[in-house]
Amino acid sequence: MHRFFPIFDWGRGYDRETFASDLVAAIVVTIMLIPQGMAYAMLAGLPPEAGLYGAMLPLVLYALFGTSRALAVGPVAVVALMTAAAAGDIAQQGTQGYHLAALAIAFLSGALMLGLGLARLGFIANFLSHPVISGFITAAGIIIAGSQIRHLTGIEMGGKTLIALIDSFFRGLGGLHWPTLAISVVVLGFLFWSRKGLAPLLARLGLGQRLAGLLAKGALLAAVAGSTLAVIWLDLEARGVAIVGDIPRGLPQFSMPVADTALLQILLVPAIMIAIVGYVESISIAQTLAAKRRQKIDPDKELVALGMANLGASVTSAMPVTGGLSRSIVNFDAGARTPAAGAMTALAIGVALMFLTPLLYALPNATLAAIIIVAVASLLDFRALPRTWSYSKMDGAAMAATIAVTLLAGVENGLMAGVGLSLALHLYRTSRPHVAIVGQVPGTEHFRNVQRHDVVTAPHVLSIRVDESLYFPNARFLEDTVNDAVAVNPEVTDVVLMFTAVNAVDASALESLEMINARLREAGIRLHLSEVKGPVMDRFGRCHFPDELSGKVFLTQHDAMAALAPEITADTCAAPRLLAPTT
Amino acid sequence: MHRFFPIFDWGRGYDRETFASDLVAAIVVTIMLIPQGMAYAMLAGLPPEAGLYGAMLPLVLYALFGTSRALAVGPVAVVALMTAAAAGDIAQQGTQGYHLAALAIAFLSGALMLGLGLARLGFIANFLSHPVISGFITAAGIIIAGSQIRHLTGIEMGGKTLIALIDSFFRGLGGLHWPTLAISVVVLGFLFWSRKGLAPLLARLGLGQRLAGLLAKGALLAAVAGSTLAVIWLDLEARGVAIVGDIPRGLPQFSMPVADTALLQILLVPAIMIAIVGYVESISIAQTLAAKRRQKIDPDKELVALGMANLGASVTSAMPVTGGLSRSIVNFDAGARTPAAGAMTALAIGVALMFLTPLLYALPNATLAAIIIVAVASLLDFRALPRTWSYSKMDGAAMAATIAVTLLAGVENGLMAGVGLSLALHLYRTSRPHVAIVGQVPGTEHFRNVQRHDVVTAPHVLSIRVDESLYFPNARFLEDTVNDAVAVNPEVTDVVLMFTAVNAVDASALESLEMINARLREAGIRLHLSEVKGPVMDRFGRCHFPDELSGKVFLTQHDAMAALAPEITADTCAAPRLLAPTT
Repeated sequence: MHRFFPIFDWGRGYDRETFASDLVAAIVVTIMLIPQGMAYAMLAGLPPEAGLYGAMLPLVLYALFGTSRALAVGPVAVVALMTAAAAGDIAQQGTQGYHLAALAIAFLSGALMLGLGLARLGFIANFLSHPVISGFITAAGIIIAGSQIRHLTGIEMGGKTLIALIDSFFRGLGGLHWPTLAISVVVLGFLFWSRKGLAPLLARLGLGQRLAGLLAKGALLAAVAGSTLAVIWLDLEARGVAIVGDIPRGLPQFSMPVADTALLQILLVPAIMIAIVGYVESISIAQTLAAKRRQKIDPDKELVALGMANLGASVTSAMPVTGGLSRSIVNFDAGARTPAAGAMTALAIGVALMFLTPLLYALPNATLAAIIIVAVASLLDFRALPRTWSYSKMDGAAMAATIAVTLLAGVENGLMAGVGLSLALHLYRTSRPHVAIVGQVPGTEHFRNVQRHDVVTAPHVLSIRVDESLYFPNARFLEDTVNDAVAVNPEVTDVVLMFTAVNAVDASALESLEMINARLREAGIRLHLSEVKGPVMDRFGRCHFPDELSGKVFLTQHDAMAALAPEITADTCAAPRLLAPTT
Repeated sequence: MHRFFPIFDWGRGYDRETFASDLVAAIVVTIMLIPQGMAYAMLAGLPPEAGLYGAMLPLVLYALFGTSRALAVGPVAVVALMTAAAAGDIAQQGTQGYHLAALAIAFLSGALMLGLGLARLGFIANFLSHPVISGFITAAGIIIAGSQIRHLTGIEMGGKTLIALIDSFFRGLGGLHWPTLAISVVVLGFLFWSRKGLAPLLARLGLGQRLAGLLAKGALLAAVAGSTLAVIWLDLEARGVAIVGDIPRGLPQFSMPVADTALLQILLVPAIMIAIVGYVESISIAQTLAAKRRQKIDPDKELVALGMANLGASVTSAMPVTGGLSRSIVNFDAGARTPAAGAMTALAIGVALMFLTPLLYALPNATLAAIIIVAVASLLDFRALPRTWSYSKMDGAAMAATIAVTLLAGVENGLMAGVGLSLALHLYRTSRPHVAIVGQVPGTEHFRNVQRHDVVTAPHVLSIRVDESLYFPNARFLEDTVNDAVAVNPEVTDVVLMFTAVNAVDASALESLEMINARLREAGIRLHLSEVKGPVMDRFGRCHFPDELSGKVFLTQHDAMAALAPEITADTCAAPRLLAPTT
């Protein structure tokens, strides 16, 4: 039971004090989650209740299976955008088919996460390098912000790419709706100011530092209440301001997601991407928060928990969910001590769904759009590109490609381009490991690169040090290196491969070694190995390579040189280059 | 000029003796190439002349651009099969559209090879690990052999997978054509016997060893002549034996391949596969032969040369080509000294096309099928799977998957499955590098794994040695490792990462290190580094990480321990565990 339900670990010591802490956190998170959930549902092209439903059963399931004590699961911006992109390929926004597609995405990505977690395959998230995920999130943030201009201004516009958004913006410019824009400007101004200015103001009004900080999280609620009241008092609905409208009262109904094979096949690739992006975002937040209290996160159990949460979303008409950055930090700061805080949040959302939805009728969409803009503004990191580029050109190129393709060809193509390019560059990098021809540092048993140090070598012995494990991406490189080195050194009769840094030799590299051995033998040259590590030697024991080797396996490079070129090692003082040794 | 035309290197010293050597080789290769070219054209679903044309302009172009002195370029079995699989998706065999598709494949794969070679991107061939290529060639060989049963027996059968072949074989069993089968049995028996038995027989008849070996290569020609004469004398054409029929007399016409964007898009993926498989087969043969004479092969120039050869094929109605194993060995053994031998082969094929095609009219298809069977029999390596499996389960799994998917779902899916799985397994392997917690070997400055050696450690200092370069596949693993190690050691105040084996740190790993540093700092723990290599330190200089590091960068691990836990290093004799030190 403990293996599958971490709740048995933290549930045992659950007491009143922990309950009180969790409850405060749950209330603060709920206050953020009601407007954010509705906003992200709008971003995903779904009715507002899909966001609120996403904050119910999924949170309860995460509380049962999750290992993070502070992660706040629920609707998040990037996953909402990816859901919209994928579901938009199936049906028009606002249709029943579109909503069913979104549920199918939640089901598929949930099932994938669950499967990967149970099979302990969480490592596939490693396909996403940091530069790719960072570039992707910045570019997705730009697309998200661009997609909200429609709600902020009333201009009829849309599109999955930056160019489509800009183009439709200028075409629709005539449809600018001044009352909507006025609400947007006021709400956006208030929200951006409140991020820095509200807590100090409340503190100056005499509230304690901590209380002021918590109350400042109510800025979203204040914006919601203020703009709703403005719509009612000024009768802005009649003047054409788009509002949320009727939200079905009560809890979500259970319904099985539609299992249409053709639909699932089309949605498989987007669902894989959503699962991986959702997991990577979530695990990174969970680990950061856990480290602050020296707690452990089990990545595979996190996958299981997120998978269950998304399966829960798919059967309750909810949008796909994952761990969100801003609410998790608030949850942690507000004192959440166990996943029970999440379950209490779900309860509070349920209460809101049963009693408060009529109050949200007149909430303008512009306010929700402003909430989205403020949330994604913190995701944008424009300095990451020059910083990454200056550190490593390859990583910078992968990031730039991810950003460019995401902006110009949409989120799915952007992510695929980034993953493809970073994999290709990684293979390129590992396909050319550092290899050095080495010689003896006179008077010592040390061997160093002949190009960097003043060392002695024997003309008939070629010692090559390989600074990387040998596997298929670099196996052929080793063949080329040895072939070329031998071709330009006609005096060579013995080649020694120094395996100091070789931690593993896979079947491809073994075949390359056999090939090198056979080719050298044809040319009358012996191949030796030195400094072979234990695990590599163990593996050689399972094949014929050591028997076929034309030379010997020496324990150390010095042993090799002592046997092959005793004139070098025996009396190094006689060597002419000894006069100016460097280290 | 020398950079692009290796002919200037070898052409300078060209003399009469070299010419004589090349000429003998060219004649022997031509004798093999006429039947093989026609046979592989039949395998590719093309008219026999497409194979002979593939032995003309492509060979001349390879002679101009190639760096291998013994590689025999021309039609080969595996590429012929892959061409048939790809062109079969576009049109029915025997139609004009099918032939145009094959030319488009030659054009595309040639352009890809040329582009990759000019951009020096030959490393992408590393995507194909040895187990994948070996499994693929064995499975392709089985499919090839199965596809020829039709010509050997007259049974109407076909299919791209083993199951389709077996199924159609049993359905068509009633159509068995006894005269065809009789020819097949005799020719197959003769060819298999001749591989081992002909040369010794000729030697016993008084011919010299070398001459007997060369004449034995004429077995193909003998089979062709014998079966053709049998068809004529016994009037087997009238009895329903399928024959080659009319071959257009004369040289191929120049014609541009059809540049239809839609067609090229469909053929792009197969063309990439054909380019990579063709290149990998060819380069491996070229390097093996070059090593025997200590010559150098330039992989990127080889790509250019093979690309030019295929572009040449595409404009002369020829099938795609690459370097073939059996003819290259014969070429080498027969004494080929320069690529001029290939150009002479092309000349000889041209002569045959102008004067000898009427003689081939009555050649039975069954003979060509038998020639294919004998050629692919040498490709099958059934012992490779258990051998690879026993060496490495991961490599064995990749090979088994390649074989299974190729047999059950066709060559393209098989190759993709193999490449995908070997990449995934490679990432999995490198995503979990060896990491050891180390302690000091008492009385020395050496530090070793605490689990393997009797070493001393300080309870508040955790020293972790990382045995791999750090990059995105393993960056998160390092985060997990440090998080977990700290979570189970509550006394720890200092963590030292020992970078002895870290040759590189990419941007993802840098971010993980920054994350580890920040998380440890939150928990009141300092992070230190030791034994950082020069290139890694240089790169750290381009970012803020060293400034943000909560601890220090120590030159050696011993320095780190001397500073952090002087009680351990200063007087190790007082340590209780000193009594039984091991090394």
